[in-house]
Amino acid sequence: MAHLAILGSTGAVGRELIEILLARRFSVDRLLLLGSSRSAGQKIIYDDRELTVEEVAETSFDGMDLVFLVADAEASRCWMPVARRAGARIIDNSSAFRLDDGVPLVVPEINAETIGQARLIANPNCSTIIMNTVVWPLHRRHSIERIVVSTYQAVSGAGFRAMTELRQQTKQVLDGHQPEPSIFRHPIAFNLFCHESAVGEDGYNDEERKMVLETRKIFGKHAPAVTATCVRVPILRAHSESINLTFREPMSEARVREILATAPGIRLVDDREASHFPMPVEAAGQDDCLVGRIRQDTSQPDGRGIELFVSGDQLRKGAALNAVQIAEYVVAT
Amino acid sequence: MAHLAILGSTGAVGRELIEILLARRFSVDRLLLLGSSRSAGQKIIYDDRELTVEEVAETSFDGMDLVFLVADAEASRCWMPVARRAGARIIDNSSAFRLDDGVPLVVPEINAETIGQARLIANPNCSTIIMNTVVWPLHRRHSIERIVVSTYQAVSGAGFRAMTELRQQTKQVLDGHQPEPSIFRHPIAFNLFCHESAVGEDGYNDEERKMVLETRKIFGKHAPAVTATCVRVPILRAHSESINLTFREPMSEARVREILATAPGIRLVDDREASHFPMPVEAAGQDDCLVGRIRQDTSQPDGRGIELFVSGDQLRKGAALNAVQIAEYVVAT
Repeated sequence: MAHLAILGSTGAVGRELIEILLARRFSVDRLLLLGSSRSAGQKIIYDDRELTVEEVAETSFDGMDLVFLVADAEASRCWMPVARRAGARIIDNSSAFRLDDGVPLVVPEINAETIGQARLIANPNCSTIIMNTVVWPLHRRHSIERIVVSTYQAVSGAGFRAMTELRQQTKQVLDGHQPEPSIFRHPIAFNLFCHESAVGEDGYNDEERKMVLETRKIFGKHAPAVTATCVRVPILRAHSESINLTFREPMSEARVREILATAPGIRLVDDREASHFPMPVEAAGQDDCLVGRIRQDTSQPDGRGIELFVSGDQLRKGAALNAVQIAEYVVAT
Repeated sequence: MAHLAILGSTGAVGRELIEILLARRFSVDRLLLLGSSRSAGQKIIYDDRELTVEEVAETSFDGMDLVFLVADAEASRCWMPVARRAGARIIDNSSAFRLDDGVPLVVPEINAETIGQARLIANPNCSTIIMNTVVWPLHRRHSIERIVVSTYQAVSGAGFRAMTELRQQTKQVLDGHQPEPSIFRHPIAFNLFCHESAVGEDGYNDEERKMVLETRKIFGKHAPAVTATCVRVPILRAHSESINLTFREPMSEARVREILATAPGIRLVDDREASHFPMPVEAAGQDDCLVGRIRQDTSQPDGRGIELFVSGDQLRKGAALNAVQIAEYVVAT
């Protein structure tokens, strides 16, 4: 797959995507970096070459084989049809088309085979990918009925500027000043708040709804029911999740550990003596999702409950890495 | 109740206790501030008087009517018998005696009547108090079968020095240095980790076990089963909790809101349009526990599930305020 374009190349996910393509030696004959007029002209180093970000236009995708859309949902809605008309295969990181019929929603460890010859493939929500990567290997072997998840989400999901805001506000507070929210509605320094996405009539916000609906699509038939509470915490770039599972049959802690120990994309971090469990600072920059706190849920008298705690890099497995894994599958098949 | 002693008066809970006693005009004829040899000699202002912290000794409690033990469990085990021999009634903030038979474990809004003539009364764990204050008014009217809770706990639960550590480490990270953990085993700046208390053979740490066992004792007969995941987040002094409830019968969001709107010690913060929900920065310094994100749990097909999000000041309702409320009850009866 020779000619490759990235729309949103200067964003947090875009930068990560470029690094991962290089690190994984993804075969690229031509790499076209695209962005808004605001980003156009920025220089990005790729494999010792300096590339200049171009402003995206109607003809940008002509001759492209593969296009990554890693800006936002609005940009994806605008530019996906243009890229499709140009004949490119498209991997879209936004929520714009994830639930559309005929658009595979893919975590390669789970459902790569749904890609087939699809021209447009959707990359799931970051919290969803991280949860699903860990839960799927269990569900595949021992059906899960229900998931109760509470997230501890880094600000990176809201982009570079949110990361800058966290640092700046934190400094303001340490210096004795009032924090000045800009990207987020509420202060994030030494604070947390429920995810900033819109809250629907049923009381769930959009991020939570993604975890519910995308998991249903990714897991397919017999998917577990999911309820989620999504929370932003003052952390830079890895999401954590407290996950409570109810299996259809009794399940043992030992069996869960056995399965997760060899599952792809996962690393067990579960040292009770050393109190060493998944932490965002250790998940950041890692490809694997870290999982620990594996234990029988003692509130379930029938032994069907299991508790887990997970940390995964929101920008890597939660976004850019998963997109590159999809691209590798597209190229290989 | 005239003569009152506080052991642990220079700690985070002790300082808060002194402020609350004054703010609530608790009748005090004599206030004796006690501490370890390290704290002895420190000056604390109480109602425009400067009091000097004395080192606790075998005779310290002689003549005292009421003693607050707000140091740690080890200090409580050591000094409780001394205070008891001196004839004082004791309110112990530590975990030392909470589960002992004959020791009332009290959240006044829930079970003040269990105090009776008890000479020793235990103040529950902070996360437990905050959860129970919100969940009890619901459970009292509509029995709850099971609670799945994940916490977002401030560092204040580990004392003043942990609060200083969070500030210092955060500054180190912002200045480009590696954080230097001292109180906590792991970095806390821009990080989170599972609660630092010891993990038992069943995989639960002590903080989680407290939430399970103390709730059982406080709620009494027909108490809900509880499973908890306790996590420290880089927040200074208010705990938050994501709480998933399963009632025995179907329950509506409207009914939950109706009950919580008038329950004591609680304030509804649940504005979906403004995305305004409980946050630690708004709970800090408040007496009330903030509750919001009230919604039907759509993963429960039979309508028995409700989700909540709570923030409460760990040092106030989670510790010092609850202890003073107990004292007020002791004095009044």
